[in-house]
Amino acid sequence: MITFRNDMAVELIDFMGDEERIVEAAQVSTKGSRAKGEKKPWLVKWLYRERHASPFEHCVMTFRIEAPIFITREILRHRISSFNEESGRYRVLRGEFYAPNKDRKLAQIGKVGNYEFVPGNRRQKLAVAAATRMAPQFSWLAYKLMIGAGVSREISRVVLPVSIYSSMYYTANLRSLLNFLSLRVDWGEDAHIRSHPQAEIEEVAVKIGLAIQEKYPNVWESFAENGYQAV
Amino acid sequence: MITFRNDMAVELIDFMGDEERIVEAAQVSTKGSRAKGEKKPWLVKWLYRERHASPFEHCVMTFRIEAPIFITREILRHRISSFNEESGRYRVLRGEFYAPNKDRKLAQIGKVGNYEFVPGNRRQKLAVAAATRMAPQFSWLAYKLMIGAGVSREISRVVLPVSIYSSMYYTANLRSLLNFLSLRVDWGEDAHIRSHPQAEIEEVAVKIGLAIQEKYPNVWESFAENGYQAV
Amino acid sequence: MITFRNDMAVELIDFMGDEERIVEAAQVSTKGSRAKGEKKPWLVKWLYRERHASPFEHCVMTFRIEAPIFITREILRHRISSFNEESGRYRVLRGEFYAPNKDRKLAQIGKVGNYEFVPGNRRQKLAVAAATRMAPQFSWLAYKLMIGAGVSREISRVVLPVSIYSSMYYTANLRSLLNFLSLRVDWGEDAHIRSHPQAEIEEVAVKIGLAIQEKYPNVWESFAENGYQAV
Amino acid sequence: MITFRNDMAVELIDFMGDEERIVEAAQVSTKGSRAKGEKKPWLVKWLYRERHASPFEHCVMTFRIEAPIFITREILRHRISSFNEESGRYRVLRGEFYAPNKDRKLAQIGKVGNYEFVPGNRRQKLAVAAATRMAPQFSWLAYKLMIGAGVSREISRVVLPVSIYSSMYYTANLRSLLNFLSLRVDWGEDAHIRSHPQAEIEEVAVKIGLAIQEKYPNVWESFAENGYQAV
Repeated sequence: MITFRNDMAVELIDFMGDEERIVEAAQVSTKGSRAKGEKKPWLVKWLYRERHASPFEHCVMTFRIEAPIFITREILRHRISSFNEESGRYRVLRGEFYAPNKDRKLAQIGKVGNYEFVPGNRRQKLAVAAATRMAPQFSWLAYKLMIGAGVSREISRVVLPVSIYSSMYYTANLRSLLNFLSLRVDWGEDAHIRSHPQAEIEEVAVKIGLAIQEKYPNVWESFAENGYQAV
Repeated sequence: MITFRNDMAVELIDFMGDEERIVEAAQVSTKGSRAKGEKKPWLVKWLYRERHASPFEHCVMTFRIEAPIFITREILRHRISSFNEESGRYRVLRGEFYAPNKDRKLAQIGKVGNYEFVPGNRRQKLAVAAATRMAPQFSWLAYKLMIGAGVSREISRVVLPVSIYSSMYYTANLRSLLNFLSLRVDWGEDAHIRSHPQAEIEEVAVKIGLAIQEKYPNVWESFAENGYQAV
Repeated sequence: MITFRNDMAVELIDFMGDEERIVEAAQVSTKGSRAKGEKKPWLVKWLYRERHASPFEHCVMTFRIEAPIFITREILRHRISSFNEESGRYRVLRGEFYAPNKDRKLAQIGKVGNYEFVPGNRRQKLAVAAATRMAPQFSWLAYKLMIGAGVSREISRVVLPVSIYSSMYYTANLRSLLNFLSLRVDWGEDAHIRSHPQAEIEEVAVKIGLAIQEKYPNVWESFAENGYQAV
Repeated sequence: MITFRNDMAVELIDFMGDEERIVEAAQVSTKGSRAKGEKKPWLVKWLYRERHASPFEHCVMTFRIEAPIFITREILRHRISSFNEESGRYRVLRGEFYAPNKDRKLAQIGKVGNYEFVPGNRRQKLAVAAATRMAPQFSWLAYKLMIGAGVSREISRVVLPVSIYSSMYYTANLRSLLNFLSLRVDWGEDAHIRSHPQAEIEEVAVKIGLAIQEKYPNVWESFAENGYQAV
């Protein structure tokens, strides 16, 4: 009756502007240029390094994301963005829930700001396997009971757990997306400032990163060369 | 072990700028004035009517809100704002959940864009009373089971329903707040465009409105006189 | 040595998303749909009328604009946008200045908030013809004198009048662009709220409007049918 | 008839929120706390270092600035802000213009991205002294000629140079202000990334910085300790 998954789906729907566009926009400032921008990897990298961020804003990407609500809530915190998210007020939701796979690290050791995640012991694994599967089961029954009785969707949905999957359209410019990646991936020792994202939003961010890397290779190199800081 | 509530708590923490400030800011544009703004209700109203919105942005308010997650998620959609929300990654949450009171209209009749809410029949009332109280009970047990086994907070929380209460700080300027009120309250026949908010976010908005009405009476009158549209 | 013009040049460089995209984004909210959006003019219009604005944000346009600085300054006031403007710090500017053509209405009669523009009498025409042509001439000499002496561009430029032409890249989503059009064109008696833009920014806005009308015909009709208010 | 100045005036009009507010907002996230925030310098610094930026957004400041248009144009590029600027459409402007004082470095040597400013030779000093004083003189006559003939303000102003003084109200939160300071002051060798601002906007930024330093001493120390990067 309900299904479980733990992947984060990220699909590039569309994008506008390539690296030549970045050059073109920058040269409006420096040359008033009317010419189509050329491929100038060195200029892209110089702009990035010198933090001339505005030319990167003319490149825009739209993604379709499927993720549980505990992740879409975090994505929505990024305000220089446009979103449409599935709404439990407008439709009866699908019974699709997140349950961690067996590789998900379950326990956190250390103290605030200095946590480490470890696989977890047998008891923890059992607790998670049972709890993350049974609670949605029960909540789903409660949801369907109300829906079946003709209760409004907006009231019925309140019993659903944040592990339920949602989907969204997410449009943002390259600068905003790089900020997202900077905060939502732990880039390790090479990062100028380390972030501590939840693994699931990190998976979303990494997949967005792959799309950026493919479409904007020199921007991507700049991102890495500058300690994974946004421009 | 868990508690239920259905009120939306809104507390004005602080605010900056009064109606004289609006006049003052407007007169920078029209007079380059250095003088402290005077009380000029007619000017506030004229600015509003003529949609000179920028002077209203120098008035800023901070609220503390307590509401269930299904409402805080909606609040977060308002991007010209600053938020800090309670995080289930950083703390073990309180077992406080939303369950509708007996006056909450439970059923929706009509079709998309033209719904009406009605009290609901006996079966619906029973379904809601049972479901909205038992599901959180069960989810809470699942949550505590994991927390008790030493599972990380970020995993344990995924079973919690969106009816769990959260709290947030919300800072926004008067223009942004009026936009919030315009969209999140159904102002009835007098509204230039009617909105169809969920009752609970409407309660939040009405309480924010009361604070605005008290601190900015002429802005509030302008809001009403202009069909409850933001400036 | 210097040239005069009075046209506002607006070129559509690129755009992303068509009206099907708006439908698609809206249906993520209402259907969680994965399907490519269909052509549904009625849905676009319904969304507009009901002020469901977010689906319109996934359509983004980039323009190249040439206009005098007294206009680019006004364009820059629109914050939900990305800009790159020609910089007098980075390049020696072109000696291209605005001088009104003979049809430009020169005199303003009436009082604040209720002005009317009239062609102007002979004395006014002579004053404008002389002043708008001679002052840039003189300023340009002063500019070139400093540049020629090896003074930095950032200091030399300070003598240049705001009638000097500048160019910019301007990227914004459809919702933001419609807000621009709402404020920067006087739509006459049909407007829900009338605006009083300077004729030159109105020319920029009208040209942006033509591009929107071509790419998004049903959005354009909605804009007109809703009193030229942004969604 | 006209006057010259070269100072940048920055006056703190109002502010909301102190360092306790930052603590308070942060503890909503970590404790759901209702308590008034305490003085916790270490927590402010930890938040800054770990790039937990949102609590800093609940502190907001309003400034009144007087600066020439070539500087106010640059200030307006900072979009997470609210502005009201003096408008030449709404009032007859004051004849107050920028002319550099004798200490202003006038010449730029080196190449793009690696400039150095030097005092300038005698010829440069003479050129600047003459040009920056005479050009506004002439432009002002042209302006007054048109105004005197009854030409509209919006047309008459086009001959005025960008050295004319303007005034503005500028409201922004602490995070946005720190971003302004990061980009608009050259913090020298200690900066994580060096900026190359024009001296006049740097003066504005330094004065804003003094107000921040006074009201938010631990934030200010954090700013310095983190290479003058915004949080």
